[in-house]
Amino acid sequence: MLRLDYHPAGRHFLQIPGPSPVPDCILRAMSYPTIDHRGPEFAELGLKVIDGIKQIFKTQHPVVIYPASGTGAWEAALVNTLSPGDTVLMYETGHFATLWKKMAENLGLNPEFIGLPGIEGWRRGVQADQIEARLRQDSGHTIKAVCVVHNETSTGVTSDIASVRKAMDAAGHPALLLVDTISGLASADYRHDEWGVDVTVSGSQKGLMLPPGISFNALSPKALEASKTARLPRAFWGWDEIVEMNKTGYWPYTPSTNLLYGLSEALDMILGEGLDNVFIRHNRLAEACRIAVRAWGLEIQCADPAVYSPVLTGVMTPEGIDADQLRKTIYERFDMSLGTGLGKMKGRMYRIGHLGDCNDLTLMATLTGCEMGMQIAGMKLAGSGVSAAMDYLVSQRVPFNR
Amino acid sequence: MLRLDYHPAGRHFLQIPGPSPVPDCILRAMSYPTIDHRGPEFAELGLKVIDGIKQIFKTQHPVVIYPASGTGAWEAALVNTLSPGDTVLMYETGHFATLWKKMAENLGLNPEFIGLPGIEGWRRGVQADQIEARLRQDSGHTIKAVCVVHNETSTGVTSDIASVRKAMDAAGHPALLLVDTISGLASADYRHDEWGVDVTVSGSQKGLMLPPGISFNALSPKALEASKTARLPRAFWGWDEIVEMNKTGYWPYTPSTNLLYGLSEALDMILGEGLDNVFIRHNRLAEACRIAVRAWGLEIQCADPAVYSPVLTGVMTPEGIDADQLRKTIYERFDMSLGTGLGKMKGRMYRIGHLGDCNDLTLMATLTGCEMGMQIAGMKLAGSGVSAAMDYLVSQRVPFNR
Amino acid sequence: MLRLDYHPAGRHFLQIPGPSPVPDCILRAMSYPTIDHRGPEFAELGLKVIDGIKQIFKTQHPVVIYPASGTGAWEAALVNTLSPGDTVLMYETGHFATLWKKMAENLGLNPEFIGLPGIEGWRRGVQADQIEARLRQDSGHTIKAVCVVHNETSTGVTSDIASVRKAMDAAGHPALLLVDTISGLASADYRHDEWGVDVTVSGSQKGLMLPPGISFNALSPKALEASKTARLPRAFWGWDEIVEMNKTGYWPYTPSTNLLYGLSEALDMILGEGLDNVFIRHNRLAEACRIAVRAWGLEIQCADPAVYSPVLTGVMTPEGIDADQLRKTIYERFDMSLGTGLGKMKGRMYRIGHLGDCNDLTLMATLTGCEMGMQIAGMKLAGSGVSAAMDYLVSQRVPFNR
Amino acid sequence: MLRLDYHPAGRHFLQIPGPSPVPDCILRAMSYPTIDHRGPEFAELGLKVIDGIKQIFKTQHPVVIYPASGTGAWEAALVNTLSPGDTVLMYETGHFATLWKKMAENLGLNPEFIGLPGIEGWRRGVQADQIEARLRQDSGHTIKAVCVVHNETSTGVTSDIASVRKAMDAAGHPALLLVDTISGLASADYRHDEWGVDVTVSGSQKGLMLPPGISFNALSPKALEASKTARLPRAFWGWDEIVEMNKTGYWPYTPSTNLLYGLSEALDMILGEGLDNVFIRHNRLAEACRIAVRAWGLEIQCADPAVYSPVLTGVMTPEGIDADQLRKTIYERFDMSLGTGLGKMKGRMYRIGHLGDCNDLTLMATLTGCEMGMQIAGMKLAGSGVSAAMDYLVSQRVPFNR
Repeated sequence: MLRLDYHPAGRHFLQIPGPSPVPDCILRAMSYPTIDHRGPEFAELGLKVIDGIKQIFKTQHPVVIYPASGTGAWEAALVNTLSPGDTVLMYETGHFATLWKKMAENLGLNPEFIGLPGIEGWRRGVQADQIEARLRQDSGHTIKAVCVVHNETSTGVTSDIASVRKAMDAAGHPALLLVDTISGLASADYRHDEWGVDVTVSGSQKGLMLPPGISFNALSPKALEASKTARLPRAFWGWDEIVEMNKTGYWPYTPSTNLLYGLSEALDMILGEGLDNVFIRHNRLAEACRIAVRAWGLEIQCADPAVYSPVLTGVMTPEGIDADQLRKTIYERFDMSLGTGLGKMKGRMYRIGHLGDCNDLTLMATLTGCEMGMQIAGMKLAGSGVSAAMDYLVSQRVPFNR
Repeated sequence: MLRLDYHPAGRHFLQIPGPSPVPDCILRAMSYPTIDHRGPEFAELGLKVIDGIKQIFKTQHPVVIYPASGTGAWEAALVNTLSPGDTVLMYETGHFATLWKKMAENLGLNPEFIGLPGIEGWRRGVQADQIEARLRQDSGHTIKAVCVVHNETSTGVTSDIASVRKAMDAAGHPALLLVDTISGLASADYRHDEWGVDVTVSGSQKGLMLPPGISFNALSPKALEASKTARLPRAFWGWDEIVEMNKTGYWPYTPSTNLLYGLSEALDMILGEGLDNVFIRHNRLAEACRIAVRAWGLEIQCADPAVYSPVLTGVMTPEGIDADQLRKTIYERFDMSLGTGLGKMKGRMYRIGHLGDCNDLTLMATLTGCEMGMQIAGMKLAGSGVSAAMDYLVSQRVPFNR
Repeated sequence: MLRLDYHPAGRHFLQIPGPSPVPDCILRAMSYPTIDHRGPEFAELGLKVIDGIKQIFKTQHPVVIYPASGTGAWEAALVNTLSPGDTVLMYETGHFATLWKKMAENLGLNPEFIGLPGIEGWRRGVQADQIEARLRQDSGHTIKAVCVVHNETSTGVTSDIASVRKAMDAAGHPALLLVDTISGLASADYRHDEWGVDVTVSGSQKGLMLPPGISFNALSPKALEASKTARLPRAFWGWDEIVEMNKTGYWPYTPSTNLLYGLSEALDMILGEGLDNVFIRHNRLAEACRIAVRAWGLEIQCADPAVYSPVLTGVMTPEGIDADQLRKTIYERFDMSLGTGLGKMKGRMYRIGHLGDCNDLTLMATLTGCEMGMQIAGMKLAGSGVSAAMDYLVSQRVPFNR
Repeated sequence: MLRLDYHPAGRHFLQIPGPSPVPDCILRAMSYPTIDHRGPEFAELGLKVIDGIKQIFKTQHPVVIYPASGTGAWEAALVNTLSPGDTVLMYETGHFATLWKKMAENLGLNPEFIGLPGIEGWRRGVQADQIEARLRQDSGHTIKAVCVVHNETSTGVTSDIASVRKAMDAAGHPALLLVDTISGLASADYRHDEWGVDVTVSGSQKGLMLPPGISFNALSPKALEASKTARLPRAFWGWDEIVEMNKTGYWPYTPSTNLLYGLSEALDMILGEGLDNVFIRHNRLAEACRIAVRAWGLEIQCADPAVYSPVLTGVMTPEGIDADQLRKTIYERFDMSLGTGLGKMKGRMYRIGHLGDCNDLTLMATLTGCEMGMQIAGMKLAGSGVSAAMDYLVSQRVPFNR
């Protein structure tokens, strides 16, 4: 019989860039008894999470919570705002940007995919000037939306969304701005309203520290307006009924009650720590991780320090080292999961997640596992990344967040 | 601060027709740590639940498990098999059949909605002869699918799916047969393959005893074939990639890991008890409930004993009694949730759920709550439904299922 | 392999007079991670539960919390206050009073056991005049303590502790008053200080709704004074070090951390509902139960209405009916546990627990299980206890305790 | 309001020598609903844990499980085997040996406390020749028991119990051998029968990975025989009734049901991994820890490599460094708890726990926390203990225990 509950001695280290480790208190919250989603108690829960999630997105406008995992929220952003055959400008930042583009094609849209050549495009974020240039050419406003990934989970590179907004404004182009921050939300600074984003897409299993299963669309008034005329067929994903019923704390169809319990707990944790403190912590851990990678003499996948991800770090392995074989070694020897190289980066990198419910010692455990694993795999390291990271953390003088 | 975890003394009785009470062991299973859905452990889980759920649907063919609640699975059934403007024959059995029809419209289909007149249609299941007659007229095969609800959650009436299949065969019509058994699965006898169903839609929060959040499409080879030419846009709901990757126990995008833990536990419980025993138990409890309703001198919403639902019983309230006010009284006095009258039945009935993790004494508690609540509400009852139900249960001589 | 987590469909009804059903939120609280009982967080927990439990005992004086089950707290009360060979006056109210007396003998004390003759003593509480008379005879003050059980778990009879205090005062006797309210605390009114009790003994698994495993000694200044000269050997049970360290929220040795988490939650629940409301609820449920027993035409074990227990009701079975066989039938048919007849009452009664996390519908479920079980066992009942209990509850007009 | 469930971002590292971190699956097992400890299900649980725990102690004879924490099991060992005024030979190995001696005095025994002078006695285990010499002098057999601590939690020094047995045999002395392995059981090799121990005392919150709250006495036939004539008063701790009732899987009084659920799970984990594998893992982690301490240039409290503890390592801090201030720094900066120096070692050492549910990366996290904390505290370290420990672990080539 399958023993799901079996685990070997000691904790598994789940250091992939999501799902991130779910804190015990969230798992406990998820085990509250399921209640009637039409009953009086539910409205309290509904109103609380709807209000709280807006604070995380930094928006005054509606945020739709879907009882579906993140890929669904990608689809929702497209089908609510666009019509069959619409041209959308999408920017290639990595594997997930590529998958989103493929989804747009499947839905009958006409994505135009721009970016930097080769893997160079996977090592730097969005180049807003390319977007601006393309939009200036589009005097007929054929392009209906610009789609950008804020935090590329496949590379550890973020994109400067404010610069994209500026580029669109500079070009005087009316396209909608759709942003995926599935893996960035609640780990990396994000400002839906201030940055003028029309639809922000996110998920539960990253910075929100929940299991996968619910996802989000944060809206702008312009996006809501666009949804009135958009002609892609939609029902489950339709914003209007949800936004309307959410005013009373309910959903038009059955929401994912127990994941909403978890979300309520996650909001208490994050807003209790303070979003700014959460970002500071992520930045400190990410910096410690990059210091380790440099000390090892390895290359960080992200080639532009201005857009390092606070969520994960992509580590490029030298010629002759199969990164997936290395990950397997580390898994088997140290019970730690690391992220694989995806798409163009298959076998050439591994990804270290340092997001969500992570602290200094968990990161150090992770780095020791990587360092030992690389030694076992016979890699020659320039020096001890662990020592370098410890030096950095010692210098920081930050108490843990009580 | 919202205290989600607060509950007054004693257990809440959640006797709505879903979400049904989630057993402790399923809640515990859902609190296992979230694992990497690309790691080696996950495949074991994936293969187990994919195999197990087939046994519940009684099918040899693929069952797609969506990380989305039941309404999504309705949409999936339509968008995978149909093209814009397609005519679908839908049968009005109640509120949920009506909502499914509305969804078909929203997705750009052309539903033809047939049924019995007035509320009569909500008190009897599908009339297969009406379907046969309509299909015989459709010599050009404009109708691409027949859509039927197996267990109408809004009424407590089931439909004879085998008779629909026979009607379609008798008419020699090639339309697909799409069936919603969201609230019937694992409570009422259901046979996907034997009954020749092409797509069966179901959800987690009813007979499977899970919280809401995952849902199902059981497929036939004919449905899979149809999906190759169906032209409604789709991505998230697309069967092909999921069916392909499921062969190794994985999903193309992030599944709802912790609900799959719960599903694994639910399958152990249900297959451990034995599906036939589960059905016998549901039938016994439903019969006890109906005996009580009759003893009270009230009318059962389902007017045809051949299609009584084993999942829930709709109780019609006499003129002058607002069923929702009665439900409120019972909730406030006895901490019990009952189902409301939906759509055409608003205020004229209440629904008693007796599905899932229910046993004799829980049902008796429920009936005492109803009987006392009706007395408090000033209703004159013909007799004690509680006494009548006890007499029936005493006569049954069935040990509980150890 | 033993599957502890296995349960058949539906909830087990644990209607014994303790352990009482543990609410989910207490089980969840018990699953918080174990912390360092010498660390800074622990003191907060320690101080909270020490303060809260005093409110339950209604005392201003120290309450010692032992990491041991209730029998240990009996021993603690004796060894902290008495010396080898000391005479103690104990009153026979039932099986547990008898066990306590046996324990006193084992510890080298000289218990004098008084009471009413035959099973009559098991059907009425303490007769304070007997105690007064005996103490008046003891002019030499040989008797060092009077030991009384406040709520006899074996019978469903309480004892009037205030009357015992008055009797002792009237006799002008300096003996200590030791009271066992293991099964009464937090279900039946209890006033340690007001009633002049010197040591009150209690446990966790009854009105406090916790699993078994911790227990209590509430002290008076006189008891603390007596402990300085008492010569029975003691170490683990010794009050002095615990009382001293408790001032800072710690214990001299390892406390039962996770049960203290549960206690913290239980205190929030009980003090949140309000002790008086808890007592009112227990009295209402107990009265409903007794009304049912009378309607069945059966005898309540407690023969004096002034001392009916709000915790449990002892139901005497007629000649020719083996109460344990009946309990077995009910267990096997309805998955409900009832209490057995103990000692002198073996086979002649069963006990219905209606304490702790119980509400109207749970009690009604219990009564239907009893009534159906007795019918299956072939007992002729005078009438329906279930109907009578419903009539009573309907008349009460009390909302459940939100 | 006290928020017990609050925890800052990331896991707390509980690296004290007990309570050790409780695995999630044990916490989950402890949340199974409390059952009737007199009902049929309970016997299965009782028999399972009674049988399993014998395998852990490596004994064929009874093991008594008390619903009380470890200090109680110390008392039980003494009161079941000894009579007032009996002389017992106790050996000073550290703080806990000293506390046990104090308990013996409190219980009216006459302990004779031998050992090495000064703190030298706290840095080496039992010197069996001293015991042999003392027993040889005792030709009148005044000494009724020899009491030794197997794993001194206060120092990280074990004692060679087999050598004590040999010494007693060599002296031809009939005293009982009582051994405390509260913190050693299931982490360090232990053989109750083979080593001829008469009573072994242990607890739950160390190698068994449970919360505190239950404890153990493993018995020999000779100990059982001695209990028949031992005259210290006892009731709660009395072996005879427990041993007798345990034959059917029950206890004479209420056991700690939910901790027994946890014990059942712990036994599955430990016996599933294999006791020998558990010991190998503990030894590997302990060796890695000692290598780190030496690399730092610090002294290990245990001065005899033959008796290093696999459970914890005592680290002596240099002159001028207050070890408790250092522990506070580490707690506040890195959310890690370390053990304090006790008794004679107050402020002069800290203790690193590496027992129970621990693995390579958790140990490495711990060592990085220590190393960084010592740097922050301004200590000059000879080198990096972290690097040295990594080198050792890399060389071990042991997969984690799936």
